[in-house]
Amino acid sequence: MPHARAVRLSRWTLASALTLAMAASAAASAAEPDLAAIRDQVTRQHDVSIKRLQDWIALPSIAAENLNSRQGAEYMARLAREAGFQKVEILDTDGKPGVFATLDAGAAKTVGLYFMYDVKQYDPAEWTSPPLEARLVDKPGLGKVMVGRGAVNQKGPESALLAALHAIRDAHEKVPVNLVLVAEGEEEIGSPHIAQLVHRPEVAAALRDTVGVFMPAASQDAEGAVQVSLGAKGVVELELVASGEKWGRGPAKDVHSSLKAMVDSPAWRLVKALNTLVSEDGNTVTIDGYPKAPAISAGDKAMVAVAAARRNEERVKAQLGVKHWIDDLAWQQANERLVSQPTVNIEGLVGGYTGPGGKTVLPHRAVAKIDMRLVPGMKKDDAVAALKSHLAKRGYGDIEVNVSGGYDPTQTAADAPLVQAQMATLKRLGLDPFFWPRNAGSYPGFVFTDKPLSLASGHFGLGHGGGAHAPDEFLVIEPSNPKVQGYDGAVMSFVEYLYELGK
Amino acid sequence: MPHARAVRLSRWTLASALTLAMAASAAASAAEPDLAAIRDQVTRQHDVSIKRLQDWIALPSIAAENLNSRQGAEYMARLAREAGFQKVEILDTDGKPGVFATLDAGAAKTVGLYFMYDVKQYDPAEWTSPPLEARLVDKPGLGKVMVGRGAVNQKGPESALLAALHAIRDAHEKVPVNLVLVAEGEEEIGSPHIAQLVHRPEVAAALRDTVGVFMPAASQDAEGAVQVSLGAKGVVELELVASGEKWGRGPAKDVHSSLKAMVDSPAWRLVKALNTLVSEDGNTVTIDGYPKAPAISAGDKAMVAVAAARRNEERVKAQLGVKHWIDDLAWQQANERLVSQPTVNIEGLVGGYTGPGGKTVLPHRAVAKIDMRLVPGMKKDDAVAALKSHLAKRGYGDIEVNVSGGYDPTQTAADAPLVQAQMATLKRLGLDPFFWPRNAGSYPGFVFTDKPLSLASGHFGLGHGGGAHAPDEFLVIEPSNPKVQGYDGAVMSFVEYLYELGK
Repeated sequence: MPHARAVRLSRWTLASALTLAMAASAAASAAEPDLAAIRDQVTRQHDVSIKRLQDWIALPSIAAENLNSRQGAEYMARLAREAGFQKVEILDTDGKPGVFATLDAGAAKTVGLYFMYDVKQYDPAEWTSPPLEARLVDKPGLGKVMVGRGAVNQKGPESALLAALHAIRDAHEKVPVNLVLVAEGEEEIGSPHIAQLVHRPEVAAALRDTVGVFMPAASQDAEGAVQVSLGAKGVVELELVASGEKWGRGPAKDVHSSLKAMVDSPAWRLVKALNTLVSEDGNTVTIDGYPKAPAISAGDKAMVAVAAARRNEERVKAQLGVKHWIDDLAWQQANERLVSQPTVNIEGLVGGYTGPGGKTVLPHRAVAKIDMRLVPGMKKDDAVAALKSHLAKRGYGDIEVNVSGGYDPTQTAADAPLVQAQMATLKRLGLDPFFWPRNAGSYPGFVFTDKPLSLASGHFGLGHGGGAHAPDEFLVIEPSNPKVQGYDGAVMSFVEYLYELGK
Repeated sequence: MPHARAVRLSRWTLASALTLAMAASAAASAAEPDLAAIRDQVTRQHDVSIKRLQDWIALPSIAAENLNSRQGAEYMARLAREAGFQKVEILDTDGKPGVFATLDAGAAKTVGLYFMYDVKQYDPAEWTSPPLEARLVDKPGLGKVMVGRGAVNQKGPESALLAALHAIRDAHEKVPVNLVLVAEGEEEIGSPHIAQLVHRPEVAAALRDTVGVFMPAASQDAEGAVQVSLGAKGVVELELVASGEKWGRGPAKDVHSSLKAMVDSPAWRLVKALNTLVSEDGNTVTIDGYPKAPAISAGDKAMVAVAAARRNEERVKAQLGVKHWIDDLAWQQANERLVSQPTVNIEGLVGGYTGPGGKTVLPHRAVAKIDMRLVPGMKKDDAVAALKSHLAKRGYGDIEVNVSGGYDPTQTAADAPLVQAQMATLKRLGLDPFFWPRNAGSYPGFVFTDKPLSLASGHFGLGHGGGAHAPDEFLVIEPSNPKVQGYDGAVMSFVEYLYELGK
């Protein structure tokens, strides 16, 4: 098939590919999909698809700020309906609403889709391009990119999957699998109500028959390489709050700092408590009774060895602005640490006066925003219980542990059909994918991979982006590197994957 | 004299006092001032004086925010001119401008005045009354108060001194001393350029002949008691900044928090460094080689014993929202600690994500805003040097120590004429003042008390206020407690003090 040789499916190469495809199509059996016709639709619909993504980005839903969640769910429902889902419902939870949708294609197989319609917070002052305008700009070394909040995390890839459904339909082809879509609006606060959505009887029943659940993603790195991840670490997000009120010492409101000589300080108390949570270098968790992480397995080590060799350490360092890995580890060992070690990270510190210059106050309250990443074998609830018990044992029982969200780690076997179809698709598209034991970032795959559903779960999609959770988040639309797929290539990668899954 | 029996000089009692005063005045020698006539002017000018203060509060100068410093200096200069200072100059410094003014009354003695025209930052959202409107509101238990930024710290008392000069002039009396005024606009950032102002040849020359320098203050507590303070602790304000850039480890920008497993954290580094600065309870400075504080002297202890007995511990605790002093000390011992112990206080913590909820970033930078209070015998520069050396020795040499301001402690002898005149005035006004070794709060008196000027320096003024540096800062205008002076009483206290100094 012509597309097997195409390492780049951009709109410019599609025209010539089309010529070949038309010839190929004529020779194809009736049962074979007319991929050339679908690809033609992808090209024709490019501007409409980009506009659809831009319109979506213009409506940010941010659970942490109680911003546009209802509107975001309604918009998600509309996008699903327009893409061909016949049954679309908004499901309320104790938090933000979710969306449940099914597309019955009359196919033999059914595939689950996990979407998020929420995005991370942003401060427009930090962006070089307005975060809601989703402008197309030239990014040196990458090509034409869309800059906007949600461009890569996760509206860009999700919209590309929806564009694939539009293209299949408009090419008068049959969607090769039935689809079950679950979308949530709280991913960025740790999915506190994802189980309420997924375990609803009608949702669970629909998912039970799927070959697994995947989330659309832009999985290529800047050089076009793709890893197939077999899971993700778990995460807990929480605030540690030291306050005069709860402590019974120090002031109940901010007082003049000169009083420090006779009044205790909740801010110092927070520092002293934080100090007990990690080793001197900040890198090893020292919480008493914390769940133990198993040693990295030989299988994981082997996967990391392959992956490390395939990735450009210097490029990653430059992207992150990092000169040395923890303990000056070599690249491969740093990656082993990444996939195998639990962490306690300070996301933010907030206490007393936080504006410009100084202000002579003794704060009555100080907060550390913390995230803890968990590896397989660790449970979110155990980690939180250990933290609370540790603080109590050290005499810091008054420090509040306010968990805002999180979930257990998730893992899927390499031989799961959902995963094998990814490998097959990627190889057919001319890529040389490699396995990755688990993402260090987290997503609530546990709700699919754990009991009672016990499904495979993962991410899939070509394309490249960056800046998730940061200013100037972007998705490459028209890449300068031919090994990287642009937006239309990402759309076609979903077409290919769905057909592979339908086999 | 009639006013000797008046324990309250409010506008309501002034009318009757006036009748007595007119009789007394007729009997007075030509050299005696007509205090009754001055008091009458104070009463008549009440509304104008209040308006003058309100207008001043409407123009906040905040050095930390680069807000209105030039305008504030010009306004200060205008206020001085209108109050009768013949020579008024705005003096530039390397920071914000100061004001230097002299009032030559042809008197035998000259008195120095230290003013600040700047105010502390404020967040209107935290106030129950707009901070720049200086509204008059009823405050339960206190009476009618003015709520506004600068109401007590320090525009209220300073405006009352200016009102005293207006009243003396409009009563056709002679100001009893010559005045030398130095006003700065950087007090709230630690007066980084006060020496540039005070040590200018013309300013130093004018100050050299004064009996000392005082700052107008609302010195009464809520029950009307007055202490005469003999000094103030020194202070250093600084930021400790941990950053990936300076450290050479960790990221150069905020990155995704999942990377904590392979990337070092500047936020943890800050916590670990902070942890070394104070004892486990946060109350004892543990900086290596930090200047030693001398043991509290017998004289200071005796002063504290008297003062503690005069002050209502429960009332102070309620005001501060404090249930226990450090180490559960008794009231007297807590006050001994207040006057004698150096401190390291966290004013603020700022790092990474500080908004609502969480955000999964690994911050590239974290900041602790610190103030350190110094007791006599300690020098600001020694304290900073010890801190830097401590951090370097512990391996934290990359953590920036950015000093924004501060000054040495200041001390004046109890037998200084400036102080003795305070005691005499307060006693004559029917009060029972007591000495206080030094304020735990700081002001740049060192620039007057240290070489080369070696002058006496202090604070003076009746009246009561609160909330300095906090929301709802206030000054009592018409007190419900007859032992507390309102605004007019404060004005008259300055009239009395100036005449006492002129003797």
